[in-house]
Amino acid sequence: MKAVIFSICPAVQVVDITHEVEQFNVQMGAFLLASAAPHFPVGTVHLAVVDPGVGGERRPIAVETKRSLYVGPDNGLLIPAAKRESIRHVYHLTNPSLMLSKISSTFHGRDIFAPVAAHLACGTPPQETGVELMDYVHLSFGEPQLDGRGATCKVIHIDHFGNIITNISQHDASGLDANAKFVITSRRSRFQATLVNAYSNIDPKNFGLIVGSHGFLEIASRESNASKKLKAKIGDTIRISET
Amino acid sequence: MKAVIFSICPAVQVVDITHEVEQFNVQMGAFLLASAAPHFPVGTVHLAVVDPGVGGERRPIAVETKRSLYVGPDNGLLIPAAKRESIRHVYHLTNPSLMLSKISSTFHGRDIFAPVAAHLACGTPPQETGVELMDYVHLSFGEPQLDGRGATCKVIHIDHFGNIITNISQHDASGLDANAKFVITSRRSRFQATLVNAYSNIDPKNFGLIVGSHGFLEIASRESNASKKLKAKIGDTIRISET
Amino acid sequence: MKAVIFSICPAVQVVDITHEVEQFNVQMGAFLLASAAPHFPVGTVHLAVVDPGVGGERRPIAVETKRSLYVGPDNGLLIPAAKRESIRHVYHLTNPSLMLSKISSTFHGRDIFAPVAAHLACGTPPQETGVELMDYVHLSFGEPQLDGRGATCKVIHIDHFGNIITNISQHDASGLDANAKFVITSRRSRFQATLVNAYSNIDPKNFGLIVGSHGFLEIASRESNASKKLKAKIGDTIRISET
Repeated sequence: MKAVIFSICPAVQVVDITHEVEQFNVQMGAFLLASAAPHFPVGTVHLAVVDPGVGGERRPIAVETKRSLYVGPDNGLLIPAAKRESIRHVYHLTNPSLMLSKISSTFHGRDIFAPVAAHLACGTPPQETGVELMDYVHLSFGEPQLDGRGATCKVIHIDHFGNIITNISQHDASGLDANAKFVITSRRSRFQATLVNAYSNIDPKNFGLIVGSHGFLEIASRESNASKKLKAKIGDTIRISET
Repeated sequence: MKAVIFSICPAVQVVDITHEVEQFNVQMGAFLLASAAPHFPVGTVHLAVVDPGVGGERRPIAVETKRSLYVGPDNGLLIPAAKRESIRHVYHLTNPSLMLSKISSTFHGRDIFAPVAAHLACGTPPQETGVELMDYVHLSFGEPQLDGRGATCKVIHIDHFGNIITNISQHDASGLDANAKFVITSRRSRFQATLVNAYSNIDPKNFGLIVGSHGFLEIASRESNASKKLKAKIGDTIRISET
Repeated sequence: MKAVIFSICPAVQVVDITHEVEQFNVQMGAFLLASAAPHFPVGTVHLAVVDPGVGGERRPIAVETKRSLYVGPDNGLLIPAAKRESIRHVYHLTNPSLMLSKISSTFHGRDIFAPVAAHLACGTPPQETGVELMDYVHLSFGEPQLDGRGATCKVIHIDHFGNIITNISQHDASGLDANAKFVITSRRSRFQATLVNAYSNIDPKNFGLIVGSHGFLEIASRESNASKKLKAKIGDTIRISET
């Protein structure tokens, strides 16, 4: 893909966000893209592919937002990142003059997405990539249910340290009582936790609740793997309540 | 190696093709290099190292083709990629002024290949790298045996999705009957398959035969690992016949 | 982190040395940084993070040497590399105008180290990063004990081929008798070895002792994993004696 990009737009800077999204895990890719995208310069072209069924019915798209462009499959992958920047237009990629002349049935990343992204990075206007789409596929991380005593939330990501990222945003987390003791209850287990503002302030015997670098409340354990201790998986429902 | 390259030729663009070639597996490296190289711009300098015995008798070489330059060990690694572009000259790297002043016995990538590649990228003519070689080491992926009912082929690569890449080229594959049912027979097992043009069209109960992005016929399984199901390994002989 | 760097200093070249330092293993990170740094151009800004306790009491620092700048945590990580280049000044990073406006408690790499490194790469003078520090944390790989019959040394690194890197420098290794037979003794086992100048010269039945590309004496095994055979771990004491 990079070979194709540099062949079309030699002066572009290419940055790898990650190559460690699990196979077919669109939600994991969407989360990591949405976490990284706000830190890139205005005008960045983001290219992302996580694809359970290449060459099937899903369409290739480009998304134009107020600050960036996104290129990838129409399976929801690009939407959480793009939505935060306000989506202006979504285009179905149908212009063959922006793609490789020979399109393989198995590697659209190289044959469609990379050349389109490279043309966009070198100044091709987004509306030349194809026809506008209204019925693109949506994807969201859901909303936690908040009440006076805590929150019922979902696990939206587990990082490679084992920290459990919930869908409780920093704003929602600010409603939790900083001095309270909490109980974390999942289908599988029940543990105590307190709010902290640094991993190093976590009580080694309990869990910590911390607004992490992704902007969401995380459940963390000191120098050990919280997701293993809690047996948590992406998609799990977790209850966090004051004791 | 990149530190050395940027010290010598600061304006060069460096692209990593892969760091996941198995240790000592020259054939796997040769396959991945040959797959990626045609997509790079004309004039690219390709640097590749897969080395079962650094510092032994194998020579360091540079290969000049009609469209690119290759730098690496004389063990066949560079040849399949270079051959497709028509080899013009092969040079034994013997010019110490293009290498680091102190050559370690264990890291020729950094001390010989990286500085020579950087000098080439910044315009040093290939013939200054050393003396021309005629007896360089060859490597090929072999040729499948084709007949009226199918093909006897070799496994030349298994990708990280588990797709089994054979040495049947796209051209050879075009001779297979698109509407036939096939039986795949290997030393270890026997399975049914049909020709498809997208992974998503594979019957979940059988295997698919598909011309993949490398330009060779692949044996694939839908959203699962074909090489595990078939217990296939690189080098295996496989028979694909019409039923 | 790269998104932040390119947002601040778009023309910089970013090179990844490694992302495979074990979690919390400051010594491993320090070793790899010290091995790679001398090969980078004069004026390089090195950014490194290995962090057992982000947001705890450890300070963020910048180190100015005779040839480069280093940015990272004050836990010893930067010191072996910086010391070889002669440390001029160490600064405690306290200037918020060089950091992201919102500092998360969990990702100082992105919020403090990356923006400071980017500003330095684009010409901000090091003394503007903060206040000079004298009591920064030291780290060293220790010194082997040498005598007439050999050396007692420590394992400071094991590479991904399984080669065991000791803290015997090239200079110290030059005192060993090139024609002698050696016995390697560790807590766990006892093996024979000879000095060689290439991996391919190692006797397949014994071990080889070789000054490797990091500039230290390594214990290696031919086309196999020496650390597994010897059950060696980082930090182990090993005795190498003439028989």
